[in-house]
Amino acid sequence: MMKNTNYTIHKHCHHNAWDNSLEPVLSVDPGESVNFEVHDASGGQLSPKSIAADIPKLDLSKLNPLTGPVYVKGAQPGDTLEVEIENFGTQSWGWTAILPEFGLLQEEFSEPYLKTWDLKNQQTAEFADGIEIPIRPFPGTIGTALPEPGEHDVIPPRKNGGNMDIRHLTKGTKLFLPVWVEGALFSVGDTHAAQGDGEVCGSAIEAPMEIQLRFKLHKGKTIQEPQFITPGPLTPGLDEKGYYVTTGYGEDLMSAAKNSVRYMIEHLEKTYGLTPQEAYALSSIAVDLKISEIVDVPHYLISAYLPQSIFK
Amino acid sequence: MMKNTNYTIHKHCHHNAWDNSLEPVLSVDPGESVNFEVHDASGGQLSPKSIAADIPKLDLSKLNPLTGPVYVKGAQPGDTLEVEIENFGTQSWGWTAILPEFGLLQEEFSEPYLKTWDLKNQQTAEFADGIEIPIRPFPGTIGTALPEPGEHDVIPPRKNGGNMDIRHLTKGTKLFLPVWVEGALFSVGDTHAAQGDGEVCGSAIEAPMEIQLRFKLHKGKTIQEPQFITPGPLTPGLDEKGYYVTTGYGEDLMSAAKNSVRYMIEHLEKTYGLTPQEAYALSSIAVDLKISEIVDVPHYLISAYLPQSIFK
Repeated sequence: MMKNTNYTIHKHCHHNAWDNSLEPVLSVDPGESVNFEVHDASGGQLSPKSIAADIPKLDLSKLNPLTGPVYVKGAQPGDTLEVEIENFGTQSWGWTAILPEFGLLQEEFSEPYLKTWDLKNQQTAEFADGIEIPIRPFPGTIGTALPEPGEHDVIPPRKNGGNMDIRHLTKGTKLFLPVWVEGALFSVGDTHAAQGDGEVCGSAIEAPMEIQLRFKLHKGKTIQEPQFITPGPLTPGLDEKGYYVTTGYGEDLMSAAKNSVRYMIEHLEKTYGLTPQEAYALSSIAVDLKISEIVDVPHYLISAYLPQSIFK
Repeated sequence: MMKNTNYTIHKHCHHNAWDNSLEPVLSVDPGESVNFEVHDASGGQLSPKSIAADIPKLDLSKLNPLTGPVYVKGAQPGDTLEVEIENFGTQSWGWTAILPEFGLLQEEFSEPYLKTWDLKNQQTAEFADGIEIPIRPFPGTIGTALPEPGEHDVIPPRKNGGNMDIRHLTKGTKLFLPVWVEGALFSVGDTHAAQGDGEVCGSAIEAPMEIQLRFKLHKGKTIQEPQFITPGPLTPGLDEKGYYVTTGYGEDLMSAAKNSVRYMIEHLEKTYGLTPQEAYALSSIAVDLKISEIVDVPHYLISAYLPQSIFK
């Protein structure tokens, strides 16, 4: 599957913080393509046999390992690094967890939860009998090194990209990243097999996989934060049967979003007999949060879109 | 076009505030269909010949007039009113404005702007030479009366629905509204010919039109805020050529959204030679704001999606 790559970086070449003092594991010329082996977001601490009781035992310092960094020859601060997402390797398994003290509704979901997924058919992932999620892989974390010295936590996204969790960074996407340091020092990790816009419970279908990326350099083109071009349609395999949508208004976007997700969880419980934890996790995997309006002061409205086609 | 309706309510039967003491203009039985004539959001103050200098002269107390209210027989607090959006009448013209002291980037856009649109072909609306927006009508404001007495401003959405500006309330959608007072007292207005998720400049393609709605009643089914079922695909005519996307991160969703829109405006200026006002208005009409991630504390990420298919 991984054709025409110039190099492969193995997953033991990873780091757990953004740090511009790290030695590059590879130097490439613009135009070259690299195959990255990527750990799952637990850094190999979870397996297909893991259970919810394993979640509190996770060493959080090992989460979201990033394969890299790659030095791109000629890249200087103020340039833009283009990363074309050329291909993904096969996925065999994945996991979705509710981690205590993490996620949009962490006050309401304090107990750990773990769902492991069989991804071997490469097309769909079965959440439960009659509920199937189309596999649509993308990297959750992808970026360049920051200009500020020292170690920077991998959890929040920043002006270098990072843990953006943008579900549309799919095959064929061209991602533009600001270059902040000489050589750009690019890394990637946290590959996901599927996710809804928002990743509300804090995890997607977290799955180790390979990802093939080609680098280009736009000298003298400066952007302040990442931008990208993604091919359409955005939601193949999801749009066909329409959506069930819950709305939430609030005086701030965060409270509006929380309410929209609470109503979605209620809907999933009542309609499909899911437990609250299952409904929250399924929302994270398959429900898209859209800003319906952001101007009708003093109230804003967020809508949570559930694709009906996941129910067979 | 408006077939099988039981009644038509003419647009002079409108009101400018939510107020549960208003006399109904019509009583209907569940199952009946009503054709509503709806004013544009200026309440007839703007016309196809209006110019930007007319914007500061608008009487703001006349904005967003609502046709109604309709009394639905048998509706009681705690029930759910289902409103099926059956059809829209033809549109002939519309407008998009930047109003001083309104909109997401009001600090940066203090000067009034007005674009009027010719909608007569019913398929697309030309923004400028080579930029065409698919027409996809929906009601910006739709809801039931609030239980709290007195007049309530029509601008913010609330638990009764109202000015939700949800662009996917298109033909075939079934909208579920909470009933807060006897008879529900339903009204609709602020019809839009097209809009992006967010309506960032504060207006859509604001267009007077007729809308045909059929009412059903779900006795004893209680929801706290509006929900809906909308047919797929969500973005016909827009998805084909993919999207150019700008991202913004922030410690709150609002600042992230503002940055993503600022970068989109820069992109539209540089790439298509638009003025800042044109780029802001076009973003309001065609760009969708998605919550990419809402959990990777302390930073959240909003992405602004520009459909490439609007450029011919």
